[in-house]
Amino acid sequence: MEEAKGLVKHVLLAKFKEGVSESEIEQLIKGYANLVNLIDPMESFHWGKDVSIENMHQGFTHIFESTFKSTEAVAEYVAHPVHVEFANLFLSHLDKVLVFDYKPTTVRV
Amino acid sequence: MEEAKGLVKHVLLAKFKEGVSESEIEQLIKGYANLVNLIDPMESFHWGKDVSIENMHQGFTHIFESTFKSTEAVAEYVAHPVHVEFANLFLSHLDKVLVFDYKPTTVRV
Repeated sequence: MEEAKGLVKHVLLAKFKEGVSESEIEQLIKGYANLVNLIDPMESFHWGKDVSIENMHQGFTHIFESTFKSTEAVAEYVAHPVHVEFANLFLSHLDKVLVFDYKPTTVRV
Repeated sequence: MEEAKGLVKHVLLAKFKEGVSESEIEQLIKGYANLVNLIDPMESFHWGKDVSIENMHQGFTHIFESTFKSTEAVAEYVAHPVHVEFANLFLSHLDKVLVFDYKPTTVRV
């Protein structure tokens, strides 16, 4: 099973609090996306809303995926003052959150 | 915010039951990966173990990401007899599971 060299995917699942409006959510998503411009080790960002049909999403409504060159780069991002400030704002709007980091590995079968 | 045309990412977070061995987990991962060869609408697959440092992974230890051309393709996959058989086996080894499907969207800021 081949592990991608270094690359780390940083996945955040979120459920926004009731009362957080669509326009507030859009501003928070833009703020999250803008971290790519402000925090050097953050390489890329995308997001999406749940469209699953199996009803196993446990109430999470949004996903955010960013990529980093290494686990050290994630640590640098997590500790970066711009991230800390954004995370405090972002998390204050969430009812539920889950963060999972991994090195994508492919399998030849 | 640009939504990827059609492409759907199917993300499964798992925590294996205590007592499931590393070699059993490896066999299950290979079985999951092999679905790409058996189920036409499944386009790609990768997986990874949690390496996060923020302790917000809520006990989940493994992630599996597969891609599909559309939500219809995911529905075809979910209903496919080979998937149903594998899912029954796979889920019987899990303590926790979460499934989230989304259309990756990028943001220009």
